[in-house]
This record gives sequence, structure tokens and C-alpha cells, in this order.
Amino acid sequence: MKEHIKVLGIVVEYNPLHFGHLNHIHQSIELVNPDYVIAVMSGNFCQRGEPAIINKFARTEIALRYGIDIVLELPTVYAIQDAGGFALGSIGILERTGVVTDIVFGSESGDLEFISKIAHLLTYQSPEFEQSFKRQLKKGYSYPNARKYALMEVIDDGMEKLSKPNDILGIEYVRALLKYDSKIKPHAIQRVGADYSDETYRGQFSSASAIRKAISHGEFSKISNAVPEWTLKVMESEFEKGRGPVFWNNMEFVLAMFRKMKREDFENIYSFNEGLDLRFVESARATGDFQDFVDRIKTKRFTYSRIRRAILHVLFEMRKKEVELSDERGPQYLRILGFTEKGRELLRIMKKSATIPMISTASLYKNVLDETQKKISEGKGHFEVEPELYIWQFERDILASDLYTLMYPNKKEAAAGMDFRQPVRTSFPSA
Amino acid sequence: MKEHIKVLGIVVEYNPLHFGHLNHIHQSIELVNPDYVIAVMSGNFCQRGEPAIINKFARTEIALRYGIDIVLELPTVYAIQDAGGFALGSIGILERTGVVTDIVFGSESGDLEFISKIAHLLTYQSPEFEQSFKRQLKKGYSYPNARKYALMEVIDDGMEKLSKPNDILGIEYVRALLKYDSKIKPHAIQRVGADYSDETYRGQFSSASAIRKAISHGEFSKISNAVPEWTLKVMESEFEKGRGPVFWNNMEFVLAMFRKMKREDFENIYSFNEGLDLRFVESARATGDFQDFVDRIKTKRFTYSRIRRAILHVLFEMRKKEVELSDERGPQYLRILGFTEKGRELLRIMKKSATIPMISTASLYKNVLDETQKKISEGKGHFEVEPELYIWQFERDILASDLYTLMYPNKKEAAAGMDFRQPVRTSFPSA
Repeated sequence: MKEHIKVLGIVVEYNPLHFGHLNHIHQSIELVNPDYVIAVMSGNFCQRGEPAIINKFARTEIALRYGIDIVLELPTVYAIQDAGGFALGSIGILERTGVVTDIVFGSESGDLEFISKIAHLLTYQSPEFEQSFKRQLKKGYSYPNARKYALMEVIDDGMEKLSKPNDILGIEYVRALLKYDSKIKPHAIQRVGADYSDETYRGQFSSASAIRKAISHGEFSKISNAVPEWTLKVMESEFEKGRGPVFWNNMEFVLAMFRKMKREDFENIYSFNEGLDLRFVESARATGDFQDFVDRIKTKRFTYSRIRRAILHVLFEMRKKEVELSDERGPQYLRILGFTEKGRELLRIMKKSATIPMISTASLYKNVLDETQKKISEGKGHFEVEPELYIWQFERDILASDLYTLMYPNKKEAAAGMDFRQPVRTSFPSA
Repeated sequence: MKEHIKVLGIVVEYNPLHFGHLNHIHQSIELVNPDYVIAVMSGNFCQRGEPAIINKFARTEIALRYGIDIVLELPTVYAIQDAGGFALGSIGILERTGVVTDIVFGSESGDLEFISKIAHLLTYQSPEFEQSFKRQLKKGYSYPNARKYALMEVIDDGMEKLSKPNDILGIEYVRALLKYDSKIKPHAIQRVGADYSDETYRGQFSSASAIRKAISHGEFSKISNAVPEWTLKVMESEFEKGRGPVFWNNMEFVLAMFRKMKREDFENIYSFNEGLDLRFVESARATGDFQDFVDRIKTKRFTYSRIRRAILHVLFEMRKKEVELSDERGPQYLRILGFTEKGRELLRIMKKSATIPMISTASLYKNVLDETQKKISEGKGHFEVEPELYIWQFERDILASDLYTLMYPNKKEAAAGMDFRQPVRTSFPSA
């Protein structure tokens, strides 16, 4: 790591970028006073198990307009996992740039000390906690809720802080930093604006969900006071071309897929444990309505997000083996989605500091791997890459894009191979 | 075969039953003067590679109202093959009832002698014909066209009769009779009304295509003079429940399926030879629009029907091995979709005469097989059943129904398992 520069890393989805995000960028910069800002961003599918409202390149452009110097893609395998896997991937990316010195995340409590305490407790689990956790699972709670209630039993104080999504994510970020034995310094800043799952439209304090909801209701004009100018401009341009808004429409086709599958076909796919396979098979047979299908699966344990992510795990062929290996070994490449002129300087530094290969031209991903392996065999650089996992992770991103474009309103724009056609976004002035 | 009764067999799709079909039934009965009439009918998918406009049970009811005593299902593996496979299956069903004495098919020429001449020529191929056939294929013609032009080279006379779809089908029927060494007597009657592919609406002379087209344009009232009363009534009732009209809508999902498939995944699927696999893979990547996808595949050799059937072959997992075995061994069961009171008498006779098991309750299909195997081992009856092929063929029908209901306009009616819930149609008086 270059000690003489300060690089801020943040983890984002920007689906789409709104004033709350902008505020987070400004606050983080003020707090850390960095030389550069790197964002690791979900690609075409987000952690709620849904396609992003506009594609990753369009969202990258917006990010570069508002103070981010480099946007790196969070590999799909992490982007569509629960908070734990999401954090493992995003912190892994920031860590493996070799340049990030600080990360700042939004948090409902803003209490880093408390978040760290819990992160340590979860990482170095006490027998007391483990027993409580098992008890909660037996009661039928979902994994995150069981963990929450177990923590509530073990910790006397501050229980109310355990249930908020950004605090939970914060705990996972700190755990991931521990896992990577990272020197990156975490900061928590108190979130302003709506809860991310609050779908009520609240003007400039609207959550991304509320903004997407307004768009889905055809109220695009309404959002002009909730998102900054470039978000509006880029979305308008994408919508005009028929490349958005992208929603999970006409998902009935997945029922066809599931009706063709037997229980054992789900066996090797990530997320299909605790009887979820049977619920999928039976529900797909019971109805031809997608929402009804999801509602039939829904239980305390299987939340909507988890169900949607599980559907994506089938679509993207996310097998248990590779997902678990991904969580163990971390991300295998830095996919550069875009950078500013200033970001270009930092990329030059990263060429020496990064501990995983950097991919800027998607079509060359195999060449990049070959070159890296050559470097390793020549004893040059310190790399943590596993060739098969690298290929597997990257090909999930490609497949995700190939299925994503099929959801474009304009089917003529929906060709496959977006990653191979789209140049990295570079033509933006530094903010 | 019972010599003392006369049973007329006809091959139908009734998609939907119109005045042309009614006319065919009346003419056939007049010609043969049978004691009973059996129709073998396509199930939920038809030979043009499309879903039927209403489901097979509804179409059965209509048939039973208009002079058919028993409706048997043409197993899906035959229903969605080209004319050759379609004929092998349908004639196989009629032959294996053990009771059919005569079949009557519509024909543009009405010239049975000529049709038989060609059928013999194709069955006992001369080297002269074979060479010509290969030459035509090399020119890039589709299989049926190459055969047609080869025949035109070999036969001097009556060439114009070779290109009409019903004459071509007639040739295949006679070939199938030869294959099964059948004693059934074929009759050809000249067709009245529009060519089946003529989509122009012509009142009571409209083709089924023209009728479906009118319905797809929301002109249901218009068709009241093209179809008899019960066709109208049953369709109305089905449409009211949201179980029709069924069209190939929202087929974009197959593009998702094909984008996930590699060339080698098509290797074992029927119809994927002559480079069709590559055209599927490339076209699915090039566009997100289903019609555009089909248009990109279309060539002289790959007709629209063939492309649509090929899509169904993927959807229903029609592997080369089993399809070819099905063509070699013929249909493995008589699936009874419905019968009249009079048909019930004939069924009693068929219980002794049929050479393949009869399935009237779908859920018992495995029991029926067990019983048949028991009879075989006890030396009772003369059966031509291959257990694995029987299961495979029947499970294709079930899968076809499970995917068919997903195309219902009312997704709440679209549960899987139609075959297991729907009782055989019996409550109709004899015509």
C-alpha cells in the first residue's frame, strides 16, 4: 500500500444515485479528506435480488459525475448474496486494490464502536452465542433474524441497533475487514434520509426503492427533486433508447424453468437448503402467476429478498461449490467499469499495488489471466488468483448481463454481449 | 381385429374444429359407413410448432359433439414432428387400437392412386431417387422441399400434386401404413375450403389459421359463421375462464434459455443438425425480440414451422435418441381424452384388441404399465410396449401440458398437472 496517498473506498449500488448518496459521498470526503475515491458497485443485479433500473455502465457514468474517481464492479456472485457475502466481496475488492486506506459506510446508529464489538463477537463466536443462534433457527427464524435474536440474548445493551439494515451491513463490513486482515480504517457515518426499504416517496429524502417505485408508476417527472441532474439526464437518455427502466416484468418464464426442474436439480445450487427446493417446485406447479409464486414460497425464514436472490442463483447457475469457494477466497479480479482523468492516475498506481488482476477490456479476460499467471511464475507481484474461480466469477457477470438486457423495454436493444461492446467510461472530467 | 365391425379412424388437430372439419367428418362417414369413429388428435401443441388455441380436453369435447366416438391423444413426440413423424405416430395409434378398419384423409388432389405410388417410391427408394434427393439438399433446400424436387425429377407426371400440404401428409400416412404392415384401408377425399396455411378469413371456408388469426385480433364475433355452435360455446367458456386463447406470447423467455445454452447443449436434441444449433445460439444473442430471433434463423432449409418445432424440442427435452426410437417403435400407449356413450362400447372391444396399453386416468400411467407387463409375462395379449419409451413418451405429454398452462391469459388458472386433474370427457350423448 502506498502510504503517502489517502484513498477512500465506498460500497454502493446507486440504483439510482440520489441525494442521500450524494450526501454520503460529500460527508465521507469531508471526514477522510482523501486523494482519490474508489466505489465498488453492484453490476446489473442488486442485493435485493432485482435487476438494476438502468445498466451498470449508465450508473457508472452518474457516479463519475459526482466525485467517484474509479468504479469497480462487485462480481455478481457477491452482489446477489446476503449481507455477509455482499460485504466479503465488496471489502475484498477494496482491499485488493492495494491502495484503499479508509472506508466509510452509512449506518443508522453511526456507532462504529458498537458495530465493531458485534463484528468481533460474530467472528470469534462464543459457545454461548452459538447455542442461542441454533435455538433461534429452530424457532423458524430466517438466518439474519436468528442471528439478531441470538445477539440480543448475548448482548445486554443497544439491541435496537441490531435490526437496521445499514448497521447489519456495517457489522459485515467490519467482519470482512477482519477476515482479510485488512489495514483499511473503517468509519461509520449516520445516515440521513429514508430507510432503504422505505418505499414512500419523500422528495429529496426518498429512498432508491421509493424512486424506483415512482418510476414504475410512470411518475418519472416526480423524481426530479429526489435525484441530482446527471441521474436524471442519464436515466432519460437510457429510457429514450428503451434500455430502461428495467424491472422484473414477465417473470412467468422462470416458472417454466422451475416446472422443468426436479428437486434434485436444485441440490447443487446455492441458497437451496432448509426445504427451499421443495417450496420452489411445489409453488411453480401451483400457479402461473409470478407474484403468487413468490408469495407461496414466502415464510418467516425465506424473505422476499432471499427468494428473489435464489431465483437469480438458478438463472446464473450459482452452484454451492463455487459460491462457497468465492466466499472463502474472495473476489478474483478488479473489473473497471469507468474512471475519471484523475482516476487514471490512481489506476497507474494500482497496476503495481493490486493483488488480483485488473480487467478493463472484458473480451481480454482470459489474456489478463494468462499474463497474471506469467507474472506469478516469474515471481513478479503478489497475486491471490485462482484461475478456475477467476473464469467462473467473470463468466457469471457476463451471463448476468446477457439475461439483463432481455429485460430492456426495447427488445431491439437487447442483444447479448453488453460487456464486450461497451467501452469503459472514461470521458468525464474529475469532479 | 374384429371383422364384423367397421371403424373409421381420422387424424385431426381441430385447432379449432371448423366447418371444413365437420364436412370432412360427414364425407368420411358417408364414404365408409362405419359403426364407430375414432379420432387421433394432437394434444396441447400442434404440428406447426404452436400451442393449440384451447386445451386438448376442451377440443375433445367439441369433437365428441360432432360425430367422433373416441378421441385419443397423439403423443407430443409425434405431434410436433414433421409430416413423416406426425404420420408415424397418428397411424401407429389407429393401427394399435386393433379395431380401425378404414382411415380417410383430406387431400388437395383426392388421388389416392397417385399418393400411394409416391409413398411406395419413397418407402422402397430407388438409387435414382436417392441421388437426386442428395443433390437437392446440397442446393440448400429444406428436407421436405428437397424430397419434393427429387420426386419431381423421378416422376414425370402430376408434379403439381406434390406441393400441397395435405397430399404430402397423405403420402406419409400411406408410408406409415406400409411401415406398420397395416390392413387398414386408406381413403383420400378431396378437401373443400381453404388451404390450412391460408390466413385470409373466408367465412365458412376459413382455415383454422385464419380463424386463429381473427381471434388473435380480438375479432371473436367474426368467427361465428366459420365454426359450428359447440366450437363457439366451448371456446367462449374457456376464454371466460381465462384458459385461452392461447398463443405464443411473451416468448422472449426462450431467448434467456438459449443464451444460457452452449452449442454442445443442443447436440443431443432432436432437430438440431445442419447448423441449426449455431443459428439458435447466435440469433438468441443478437436480439431480444422473439420474432426477430425466428426471422434471423429462417432460411430456405429452416422453415418457420421447423424452427418453432425445434424450440419445442428444446422446451420438452426431446432428445434425438428417444425421438428416433419413437419413430422406429411407434407410439407406446393409447391416451383416451374422451368418449361418448357409444364410444364406451368400442372401448370395451379395444380392451381386448389394443396392442399397446390404454391410459384413461393419467395418474395411473405407471400402474397401467405394470399391469401390461404382468399380462405380457403371463402370456396374455399381444403387446408392443417398451417400458422406458412408454414412460418417456407419456412424461413428454405431461411436461407439454405443464408448460402449456403457463400460456393461459389467466395465470391463476395456470397450475401444472392438468392431465391429473381433468377427468376424461364422457358425458356427451352419441352424435
